[in-house]
Amino acid sequence: MTIAFSHIAICGLGLIGGSLARDIRKLGLAETITGFGRSPERLTEAARMGLIDAWSTEFSEGLQQADLIIVGTPVRLIPQQILSLLPHVKQGAIITDVGSVKTAIMEQVEPHMPAGVFFVGGHPIAGTEDSGFEASLAGLFEKRACVVTPTVSTDQQALLAVENFWKAVGANVVRMDMQTHDLIFAGISHLPHMVAFSLVNAVSDMESTTRQILQYSAGGFRDFTRIAASDPVMWRDIALMNKEHILHAICFFEKSLQALKQQIIDNNGEEIERFFQKSHDTRRAI
Amino acid sequence: MTIAFSHIAICGLGLIGGSLARDIRKLGLAETITGFGRSPERLTEAARMGLIDAWSTEFSEGLQQADLIIVGTPVRLIPQQILSLLPHVKQGAIITDVGSVKTAIMEQVEPHMPAGVFFVGGHPIAGTEDSGFEASLAGLFEKRACVVTPTVSTDQQALLAVENFWKAVGANVVRMDMQTHDLIFAGISHLPHMVAFSLVNAVSDMESTTRQILQYSAGGFRDFTRIAASDPVMWRDIALMNKEHILHAICFFEKSLQALKQQIIDNNGEEIERFFQKSHDTRRAI
Repeated sequence: MTIAFSHIAICGLGLIGGSLARDIRKLGLAETITGFGRSPERLTEAARMGLIDAWSTEFSEGLQQADLIIVGTPVRLIPQQILSLLPHVKQGAIITDVGSVKTAIMEQVEPHMPAGVFFVGGHPIAGTEDSGFEASLAGLFEKRACVVTPTVSTDQQALLAVENFWKAVGANVVRMDMQTHDLIFAGISHLPHMVAFSLVNAVSDMESTTRQILQYSAGGFRDFTRIAASDPVMWRDIALMNKEHILHAICFFEKSLQALKQQIIDNNGEEIERFFQKSHDTRRAI
Repeated sequence: MTIAFSHIAICGLGLIGGSLARDIRKLGLAETITGFGRSPERLTEAARMGLIDAWSTEFSEGLQQADLIIVGTPVRLIPQQILSLLPHVKQGAIITDVGSVKTAIMEQVEPHMPAGVFFVGGHPIAGTEDSGFEASLAGLFEKRACVVTPTVSTDQQALLAVENFWKAVGANVVRMDMQTHDLIFAGISHLPHMVAFSLVNAVSDMESTTRQILQYSAGGFRDFTRIAASDPVMWRDIALMNKEHILHAICFFEKSLQALKQQIIDNNGEEIERFFQKSHDTRRAI
């Protein structure tokens, strides 16, 4: 596999962007890496560590040379970041992102792509609770899935180039349409977070009456609090950006809980056991 | 602390009963340990390992000598086990249990206690997914909470004796009335399990349409499947035995999820963030 990029720009050196800079450098995937971000301190630090060759807080400086531009900012900022960097990129440049919601990003970005500049949506499945440059590390994407979400207007050469880039950092690339991506991650990731946040709040509301609940955070509750400790701002943005799919997944969940509740009300031991057994068996299927 | 028991009987050598046998032997908390259970193979094995001195599958043999009788059978069997052992115990014997639901057990047992035989309800907070004698180990209760649930009719000497026993195996003893216990554990343990079972089933129902969901079991979902892999029969029994408190806890949860859902429908980013932040902060409070 030959790497087609001589100059890669990374916008946002957080967990994903920082880890990519480490991999690109370590594996020699580009001659030059330029970092863009809001914090001169972090960018200086990344340059001092040799992870980037140049940096700027302004897209007007140095973006013109980039062949591949990876946007790794917080998910809600991705569309506006892409739109504001477009005036500064060269013909033939490929832009990709790492946002965990795809439809909202694709729909805001694709209609504005100039001729000869290409966008490919992506979502590497790596990193959950920890975030920021401090948590970044080489090899983060190794053997992890990376979803790419081409549309009818995606350039096939650009798609292959982005897929090859992710393969080069060790990821298993999966192509998926953006709606399917957003539905799957609503179920597998966003719904569990919504449920965990709601559960922790419900139990702490009960706590105001009993006052003792949180002392005995044994068994199940602890696992939920771990998920519910995820970044509130990031999850607010995901909730808003993948709204329809998340509401759809919540409906499925409500039906499921309602069924269990009715079985408990009815003292229907046989159905309760079957319900729990089904869930028990699903784990084995994974 | 002097140990007041020369002969301890353990009914049910599962995770809890087996671990107690190990601790009693190791710490020398009784001269004689007798094991009762359904499986001669397991009892023979425990005797071969030196954990029990004698065993029987019938309460008519050897229970008469026991000063302390610990009932560690699956929770739904505890009341009937206690009632059926009563004709065979001596005057002054103390009976305790390890059931994770207390009101249903206490109410079935207490009215039938003969004069001069004492019952003290208990619930050591130890062990979750793994179960059975094979998973038992010495030191399981060290620094873990053990709740005892005295009532107005509990004998104070018996209560102290049971509390001292749990302290001797390293547990932090907490006195609590049985209703409070059942409400707290409905919130902290039973509700998270009901929610996890429901979530895993909901996502696997979605899977029948998308077919791909379970392949990407990243982030949140994996934690849920771990909880939802708990023993279906044990959790069926808990659901039935702590029905009212669990339904109460589910109501709290439904209100919490409903509030979040409405905030998402309304695109109310400020409230969503506040909701997630509250949950985030609760973890820190633990």
